[in-house]
Amino acid sequence: MTALNYHSPLLASEKVFRDPVLDYIHVQHRVILDLIDSQEVQRLRRIKQLGTTSYTFHGAEHSRFAHSLGVYEITRRICDRFVRNYPIEKDAVNGWNDKERLVTLCAALLHDIGHGPFSHSFEGIFNTDHEVMTEKIILSPDTEVNAILTKVAEDFPEKVASVINKTYPNKQVVDLISSQIDADRMDYLKRDAYFTGVTYGDFDLARILRVIRPYHNKIVFQIQGTHAVEDYIVSRYQMHMQVYFHHVSRGMEVTLERMLARAKHLYQRGDLLLTEGFLRPFFDENYTMQEYLRLDDGVLTTHMLEWQKHPDSILSNLAYRFLSRKPLKSVRFDPEKDKDLLLNLEQLIEKAGYNIEYYTATNSSYDLPYDFFRPDDADKSKTSIELIHENGDPVELSQVSDLVASITGTVHGDHRFYVPKEFISQQEYEELSLFEPIFKEFKQYIKNGSLHHPENNL
Amino acid sequence: MTALNYHSPLLASEKVFRDPVLDYIHVQHRVILDLIDSQEVQRLRRIKQLGTTSYTFHGAEHSRFAHSLGVYEITRRICDRFVRNYPIEKDAVNGWNDKERLVTLCAALLHDIGHGPFSHSFEGIFNTDHEVMTEKIILSPDTEVNAILTKVAEDFPEKVASVINKTYPNKQVVDLISSQIDADRMDYLKRDAYFTGVTYGDFDLARILRVIRPYHNKIVFQIQGTHAVEDYIVSRYQMHMQVYFHHVSRGMEVTLERMLARAKHLYQRGDLLLTEGFLRPFFDENYTMQEYLRLDDGVLTTHMLEWQKHPDSILSNLAYRFLSRKPLKSVRFDPEKDKDLLLNLEQLIEKAGYNIEYYTATNSSYDLPYDFFRPDDADKSKTSIELIHENGDPVELSQVSDLVASITGTVHGDHRFYVPKEFISQQEYEELSLFEPIFKEFKQYIKNGSLHHPENNL
Amino acid sequence: MTALNYHSPLLASEKVFRDPVLDYIHVQHRVILDLIDSQEVQRLRRIKQLGTTSYTFHGAEHSRFAHSLGVYEITRRICDRFVRNYPIEKDAVNGWNDKERLVTLCAALLHDIGHGPFSHSFEGIFNTDHEVMTEKIILSPDTEVNAILTKVAEDFPEKVASVINKTYPNKQVVDLISSQIDADRMDYLKRDAYFTGVTYGDFDLARILRVIRPYHNKIVFQIQGTHAVEDYIVSRYQMHMQVYFHHVSRGMEVTLERMLARAKHLYQRGDLLLTEGFLRPFFDENYTMQEYLRLDDGVLTTHMLEWQKHPDSILSNLAYRFLSRKPLKSVRFDPEKDKDLLLNLEQLIEKAGYNIEYYTATNSSYDLPYDFFRPDDADKSKTSIELIHENGDPVELSQVSDLVASITGTVHGDHRFYVPKEFISQQEYEELSLFEPIFKEFKQYIKNGSLHHPENNL
Amino acid sequence: MTALNYHSPLLASEKVFRDPVLDYIHVQHRVILDLIDSQEVQRLRRIKQLGTTSYTFHGAEHSRFAHSLGVYEITRRICDRFVRNYPIEKDAVNGWNDKERLVTLCAALLHDIGHGPFSHSFEGIFNTDHEVMTEKIILSPDTEVNAILTKVAEDFPEKVASVINKTYPNKQVVDLISSQIDADRMDYLKRDAYFTGVTYGDFDLARILRVIRPYHNKIVFQIQGTHAVEDYIVSRYQMHMQVYFHHVSRGMEVTLERMLARAKHLYQRGDLLLTEGFLRPFFDENYTMQEYLRLDDGVLTTHMLEWQKHPDSILSNLAYRFLSRKPLKSVRFDPEKDKDLLLNLEQLIEKAGYNIEYYTATNSSYDLPYDFFRPDDADKSKTSIELIHENGDPVELSQVSDLVASITGTVHGDHRFYVPKEFISQQEYEELSLFEPIFKEFKQYIKNGSLHHPENNL
Repeated sequence: MTALNYHSPLLASEKVFRDPVLDYIHVQHRVILDLIDSQEVQRLRRIKQLGTTSYTFHGAEHSRFAHSLGVYEITRRICDRFVRNYPIEKDAVNGWNDKERLVTLCAALLHDIGHGPFSHSFEGIFNTDHEVMTEKIILSPDTEVNAILTKVAEDFPEKVASVINKTYPNKQVVDLISSQIDADRMDYLKRDAYFTGVTYGDFDLARILRVIRPYHNKIVFQIQGTHAVEDYIVSRYQMHMQVYFHHVSRGMEVTLERMLARAKHLYQRGDLLLTEGFLRPFFDENYTMQEYLRLDDGVLTTHMLEWQKHPDSILSNLAYRFLSRKPLKSVRFDPEKDKDLLLNLEQLIEKAGYNIEYYTATNSSYDLPYDFFRPDDADKSKTSIELIHENGDPVELSQVSDLVASITGTVHGDHRFYVPKEFISQQEYEELSLFEPIFKEFKQYIKNGSLHHPENNL
Repeated sequence: MTALNYHSPLLASEKVFRDPVLDYIHVQHRVILDLIDSQEVQRLRRIKQLGTTSYTFHGAEHSRFAHSLGVYEITRRICDRFVRNYPIEKDAVNGWNDKERLVTLCAALLHDIGHGPFSHSFEGIFNTDHEVMTEKIILSPDTEVNAILTKVAEDFPEKVASVINKTYPNKQVVDLISSQIDADRMDYLKRDAYFTGVTYGDFDLARILRVIRPYHNKIVFQIQGTHAVEDYIVSRYQMHMQVYFHHVSRGMEVTLERMLARAKHLYQRGDLLLTEGFLRPFFDENYTMQEYLRLDDGVLTTHMLEWQKHPDSILSNLAYRFLSRKPLKSVRFDPEKDKDLLLNLEQLIEKAGYNIEYYTATNSSYDLPYDFFRPDDADKSKTSIELIHENGDPVELSQVSDLVASITGTVHGDHRFYVPKEFISQQEYEELSLFEPIFKEFKQYIKNGSLHHPENNL
Repeated sequence: MTALNYHSPLLASEKVFRDPVLDYIHVQHRVILDLIDSQEVQRLRRIKQLGTTSYTFHGAEHSRFAHSLGVYEITRRICDRFVRNYPIEKDAVNGWNDKERLVTLCAALLHDIGHGPFSHSFEGIFNTDHEVMTEKIILSPDTEVNAILTKVAEDFPEKVASVINKTYPNKQVVDLISSQIDADRMDYLKRDAYFTGVTYGDFDLARILRVIRPYHNKIVFQIQGTHAVEDYIVSRYQMHMQVYFHHVSRGMEVTLERMLARAKHLYQRGDLLLTEGFLRPFFDENYTMQEYLRLDDGVLTTHMLEWQKHPDSILSNLAYRFLSRKPLKSVRFDPEKDKDLLLNLEQLIEKAGYNIEYYTATNSSYDLPYDFFRPDDADKSKTSIELIHENGDPVELSQVSDLVASITGTVHGDHRFYVPKEFISQQEYEELSLFEPIFKEFKQYIKNGSLHHPENNL
Repeated sequence: MTALNYHSPLLASEKVFRDPVLDYIHVQHRVILDLIDSQEVQRLRRIKQLGTTSYTFHGAEHSRFAHSLGVYEITRRICDRFVRNYPIEKDAVNGWNDKERLVTLCAALLHDIGHGPFSHSFEGIFNTDHEVMTEKIILSPDTEVNAILTKVAEDFPEKVASVINKTYPNKQVVDLISSQIDADRMDYLKRDAYFTGVTYGDFDLARILRVIRPYHNKIVFQIQGTHAVEDYIVSRYQMHMQVYFHHVSRGMEVTLERMLARAKHLYQRGDLLLTEGFLRPFFDENYTMQEYLRLDDGVLTTHMLEWQKHPDSILSNLAYRFLSRKPLKSVRFDPEKDKDLLLNLEQLIEKAGYNIEYYTATNSSYDLPYDFFRPDDADKSKTSIELIHENGDPVELSQVSDLVASITGTVHGDHRFYVPKEFISQQEYEELSLFEPIFKEFKQYIKNGSLHHPENNL
């Protein structure tokens, strides 16, 4: 940090941002304030943290900007605690080196800088990758972010990037930003719970901040905090099941994917003009970082507003469905047993006049709520959550928590088949459709929300 | 409600939306569910409730859609309470007629349907009016909203519109939607407090719902709720002073206004092309309702992203300032006494090379936190807040609350002069500007955030 | 309800009590208001809900009175929902009969009326039984409670008592008051979480109230509420592990038990006089209901204040320890393997001059967080938690929740050995005791809070 | 602090207590931990913070112990902030000397140590004074508190006492413990709001802690915190009007006072025996500090339980009324104008057979929500709240806040006349009393809760 070009690395007086989740975000370094004010970080204001989830939980309209500030702040609080309780000056093996503070804070703030609008669907269609973009934005000499980081030291951008891609030598720093219980996840759990209004996601952050500590080359937790850590894992599991995997949000995602796929198809056959070049480079699969940085939620919805008037009825209809929240609806299925059923159903849908390429989809949600490192794991960087006894003996979390053990190493989620609404829901009041008999036949394949053989009804 | 075309006005089973502020939004009528799902109401998801305020309070990214659901829900709770405690069947003079429920709920849900993006600045430049648009959207046969309302009865859209424009004959209904303590204000105070994280705005909604009641042709409050009503007025006052009038958000607004004015200027002299016609009708001041309904926050920011690359340096710079949150900064002034000072300062700013038409602005915030009706008031529809004694004697709020009396009938707010940042803030670390002496001279006119004569320093 | 002697069973206007947990307690029946104002219910103000727990969590000073109001209120809200959504008039098999409302509310309010001070310890020493006393207080013609209930109908007290002891014929009513997810548990979980400040206990009451329903002769939950019910079970488990089983509160309980045992011993050998006869009947194990109803926390602590000055050093010391929060401290042990170790340790304690009968204790906490009914269960009244699919198919909770399955049917808790503090904690600053070598030897038996063989240290 | 006898003034590791209001209470000094564990501080667990208020707000059962921990914790947080931002080493005039920390923390923890049960009523009857007792308990060599403080330094107890009685030379320290916005008031406002469930009392503690600062020889607030300070004053005013002055709690107090007066009267004429000497020294008005320290809420209610069976019907009836929450009821009156009316009414009450000495009372609540120091004030120690501009210019709070100005220097509250319930409330269902005509006549003097001349009804 010798080459610092700033007159002083610390602000004359701390600056704060009011935050509904963490009360205040405290900024003490000029570098951090400048990064926040950079155009690349400000772009994150225009990208929703949870993409299509706000169509299910209307409160969840918060942006990746707010989340990035939150990750920064939780990291800052942990550093404060570490330097007070576990300075490396007192314990060279298990202590925290506060010279790592600035690189840790910058990585925390910038870890999501490469995200684009509706990442999940967009990346699938256009082959973009937010992790690659994150690294580029930090390392490219063309960004404000890079210019600010370079003022700290020539090699500082690379250091920050290496924390995010987990190659930074100090693993305590890496663990704080990405591990099974890191500042990123802690912030998004609390924040998403607050904005959705789903209380399951709330956990005892104050207590976790009391028991987290550096230990050798990792981050661990004091044994007396076991229940708080257990509660965090359980909350995370519950948020996945209740919010992140919600079938309606996934229906919006599926609708968006089909719309982008149709637009690409029309573009490639010359039937779609693209405004001002925002999306053209992506349809051409030949884009620059600067072009990527112009994307945001508003650019996408602006295109949809145009597509809604496009002569192609599939594109305009899918755009209308998305903008007016009329997503495809779903039924659970079993990918092992229900293959034949799916074929039957696709035929029915086709018979009712729908192009099944754009009006049906399967979608699987999955998550490993928690797992510990196993010797034969391919991913050697996977980290267990470890608790430390008073005398320093470590113990892995699922060894002491029946709750955590019950969801350890098992994938959770479901598989869903998405189709137009009329195949799933009862028509309660509209005039009857010509295809009513087909809809009726389709519905016989559904029982308690899952696919089943109609003859099983007998 | 005789002509109801729906098979049944009530849903087979209530539908709910999780809401972080009100816990759940309960929908019981098919009409309401259909209105929520209409494209005009869904458009409100793409318009932030507080416009530029999210640049000051980063949590405040909630949309007008969430607020509209909230106003609906509070209205619904009040109706539930009225029908249980004050049915007109029991008291023909002071009771509530529950046949008014549906029109009241629809008006609550739709009261903001005509808002556009960043209404405040946009309307100033383009002469649009969200109240006029609200009426049009409800009454025009071209909207989904109108089609849904018409299914209830031919004249139902007009009834709903008349509640919103206060001409509906039942004044209890009008008061619930717009008066000094209506469902609209109750929702936005609680919601804005929740999302900004500023706790001042929170008041005791549960208690107010307990004491609110119909009485003759208006809405009043039982005397035992005086303190809750007082607290609501004080909270509202505090939210204005702390949040709605925040000088940084106003700086963003001023920046936006100047940008739009510059764009209009360039367009009129033929130096600006406009994408896909989104804004062209407005620059031409000749737009249709359908064109208005295509506007949202994303459309505006998408245009700014283009303007940021425009050859006109004023337009591109103002667009960059807005998108990267680098608003004009301000100093308080006294419009009576400081006229000459302002002229001096504008000269300084011009000397430093700025076009003062686009780089300076004055901006005044003002609010009448509460007032009671006075016989000579021009606005005969203005309503006092009345409390009712056990024996029915009424008393006006400011008569029994010293706190409220202290802010009754007085306008609060301030006047600010906005200029580029370098004239107000100290440069802490960047290389010195050629204009440093001018900046220094300018700063001598500022003391504790207000304009003053430099010689007064001696 | 025919014989109702009250002029009107409903109050002219609802009366409310502000409640920090449930916002408001709403009282609509005169009977309920009179019961609340009875001296037997008012006595519950003088008995803490959580006994010695407030010595660990100092916020948890709430009384059984507040809890009783809460159970009443949750029951009332459930009845309101049932009568609106599942009236027996519409569904004779699965509906709710609102004529059961009053008996259900009274049972809810009175279910804890027989509790005495520090029930756990007191009942152990004096052979009292709060369930027996509850029934007596409701049925005895000498109580205000009975007089009030009798005004409703001659046999009304018996009906209320039979709901509490689970013999009431309508099992829906019984389930609401006592089952694995009843109004009693819902209130105490939320209330105890609020007052201790331990957030784990908070669960989504609003959602559970939305999905709870009568079904045949029991209470079940709609399948879409699975996660809320799961969360309730997990919260309950966590509150047990974190709060109800806390080793310090149990140390206070153990200290209290030993003190009462010593007092009884002294009384029986004629060395203890008892003030005004408050406790005498209990020492004599020959007490009346009226004598029982004079007991409360204050009466017990007043006696301790006297005992603190008693010439018997064991009694006075234990009273001092309790009043000044200096409980016996503990170490975990394994009742199977550690029997010999316990004997060794008792010898050490005796060697240091302590009477081990009064200065040591073992204490076991245990709880079955959830279990389903098994055909061979002795307790035929045990109830599973059942979820109901849209089509009416039932499914037992642990079948659909991995989390719940992981703690189903297994007892949780621990076994602890309590001894004077000096054997467990390091003396940090006081002058050395003569017995320091004994304390040191004792400590070699402890590792990470559990007993172990000292030779295992080698 | 040189003579510190403890091996180390700081604990090896911080100890925390979970607190529902402040999250955690952090204890870092051994002295503080020892004081908390002393029998004099532990006694405060047995004295409710709000006396009879829990009879109105049943959640408000928290003790003076919890409040004392809270005052300590807020003081600790302020010290932490001061030492980080305003160390005296950097600014000898306006800085904070952290050597004052320990004496400040001890004073914060002990400021209420001299309170007895139901102080308000008790002190009136028995001429005790909790401020005098606080000083005695700290200075007397017979208390554990004194012994602990003396270990720090011989003169340390006197220093602590002088902070509490405002004679300590460093006025910054005095202001933190007692001024118009001190740690004591900040804790009780937040705590009482939390436990009563009355949200008015909540204010933005986090923000106040950000703007509080030492300045010369006092405590002031940065100007940007004006609204938070204003909100604190308004909250305090609202808590007084809504909670502390509640007429039902005052009815309980009046009932208690009358009961104690009657008991004293009976004792003096030899008709009352007193258990174990708890109260005897106070009836004799000749008590020691040790006798005072044996008093708590439980001792008083235990006496009432005995008095409830006393042959004197006035004493037993008043004890029954208190224990069963049947307080005297009230009507507002004007002490200037209503003197004659009161005489009339007392005659009516006497005519109905009541001893007016014990069954009537007048009670006045009053509070000066805020005032600034005026040159001619008798109390020279009265402090204004001062705000400091960026350049150091001070301004008194009511100069910049219209809300505060409206309640500055004016006494708020009301005057009430208390009588048995039957004179005020309608009898709704009980059999008619012989005295019904008298009750009816009495009620003609009441209109909207206030006394008025019956002829004014005509």
